[in-house]
Amino acid sequence: MAMMACFDPGDEILIPEPFYANYNGFAAMGGVVLRPFTTLIEENFALPAVEDLAGAVGPRTRAIMICNPNNPTGTLYTRQELAGLAALAKAHDLFLIADEVYREFVYDGLEHDSILSLEGMEDHAVVVESTSKMYSACGARIGALITRNRELMGTVLKYAQARLSPPTLDQAGALSALLHTGRDYFDGVRSEYVARRNTMVQALNALPGVQCPLPGGAFYAVARLPIDDSDAFCQWMLEHHRHEGATVMMAPATGFYATPGLGKQEVRLAYVLDQESLVRAMDCLATGLEAYNARG
Amino acid sequence: MAMMACFDPGDEILIPEPFYANYNGFAAMGGVVLRPFTTLIEENFALPAVEDLAGAVGPRTRAIMICNPNNPTGTLYTRQELAGLAALAKAHDLFLIADEVYREFVYDGLEHDSILSLEGMEDHAVVVESTSKMYSACGARIGALITRNRELMGTVLKYAQARLSPPTLDQAGALSALLHTGRDYFDGVRSEYVARRNTMVQALNALPGVQCPLPGGAFYAVARLPIDDSDAFCQWMLEHHRHEGATVMMAPATGFYATPGLGKQEVRLAYVLDQESLVRAMDCLATGLEAYNARG
Repeated sequence: MAMMACFDPGDEILIPEPFYANYNGFAAMGGVVLRPFTTLIEENFALPAVEDLAGAVGPRTRAIMICNPNNPTGTLYTRQELAGLAALAKAHDLFLIADEVYREFVYDGLEHDSILSLEGMEDHAVVVESTSKMYSACGARIGALITRNRELMGTVLKYAQARLSPPTLDQAGALSALLHTGRDYFDGVRSEYVARRNTMVQALNALPGVQCPLPGGAFYAVARLPIDDSDAFCQWMLEHHRHEGATVMMAPATGFYATPGLGKQEVRLAYVLDQESLVRAMDCLATGLEAYNARG
Repeated sequence: MAMMACFDPGDEILIPEPFYANYNGFAAMGGVVLRPFTTLIEENFALPAVEDLAGAVGPRTRAIMICNPNNPTGTLYTRQELAGLAALAKAHDLFLIADEVYREFVYDGLEHDSILSLEGMEDHAVVVESTSKMYSACGARIGALITRNRELMGTVLKYAQARLSPPTLDQAGALSALLHTGRDYFDGVRSEYVARRNTMVQALNALPGVQCPLPGGAFYAVARLPIDDSDAFCQWMLEHHRHEGATVMMAPATGFYATPGLGKQEVRLAYVLDQESLVRAMDCLATGLEAYNARG
């Protein structure tokens, strides 16, 4: 609905890549063009300086879009980075759309800053929220679009009315989750995910030729592997590699980059398994990398 | 998804009016233009002869779309009418899209003919189906798009994958409804709706100046009333008229016509109440019409 309501066909969105691949589909539905600017694994996928980003604003640019914490990189943006985007949005009258579905998943004592907390952004800030991510309720199709821009909300409401209602039973489930989970629920979730993240990222960086920055949020990490082609490697792992009777399914990072050719040495890993399984998975990946690179 | 997958922006759909108003929203999302051809209450909203319809096919026409049985009119199309549309679709290489969500709601011993049963329509026929209508489960967001056209289904699948999944809990509810309701369930539903329909339509036609054809299906009827402006009348009923402490909410037919000015004397009524309530509603409408037309 954000893609439909904020834009006319042909309008453009500036977005850091790698980005969640499904944005492509929703942009296509609205006839909107995603203009990527590349963030680098060597910089933990931090945003570029605002001065550099300003040059990317073109005549059809209507928005900047981020996912914070980020899918696929797990990067948590700093308040300074967000303030820079806000300044750019105000200077060029752009929407700043933030997918904040992982906002409770932030670690190491860091705080998540919602773009809704940025000053003077009442007409610019659009937040997207999801029950399924917040409560590990895959398939719950309950979400929210949040903005203080009344004109935009009026337009979004037309799309919502065409849809008639969100699913009834999932609404009941979401309500129950909201009513019966307090802060302590997320404290428990966070400590578990920190342990998983540390286990996985430490194991990754211990492998020869592997580089994985420590993500500040979400439950994803992007790792650079000593491989030639992440699509081929991920497929090969599924089809040909078994370690203790199991393999590891990863997402090739190529699908998260809009610029052709990028991501060929990177994969996205989701640390959504218990620690013991993650340890086994890293052993499996280690043997997989050896075997893959030793092929004839 | 049908509106997105079958068309490019600017493509046109021929559609009998009055039609379900929400099609407008979905067409707008896809940049598709709905080209209405008018059906008449005097003819129980029957489709025009194929020869007359052929003249409406233009260079951007890509589909014919119907709702059968119809919302808002309750009209059940005959096999002959459907065969005519199929011939037209084949002759001009058009999709024939049928919203068949009310297919179990057909009365008087008539049979519902799905466009999927028409010969030679494998590449043209697209059916839309809904659990919420079938099982009176308002808010269940579980539906289906059905076609034998593999290329189209491949495109639809991309939209489905962007959506990731239908809602989990509603899927469980829909599965239960499918597993635990046999033909006898719909027999019971049909006999109840026939009784409601007869009660309402007989009462309507007994009112001075009111005309309401007997609908063959769904649970709607469009009635012509002795009024000047259906929007004003429906609003007046809600704001100013009470009979035994209650009023009747109807949908002005103007919203179901794309041609400006049509439907000003018509309203859509849904016979989704028990018969006793319908009798009271018709008494309320009778007194409402008198009072409305007696205003100063």
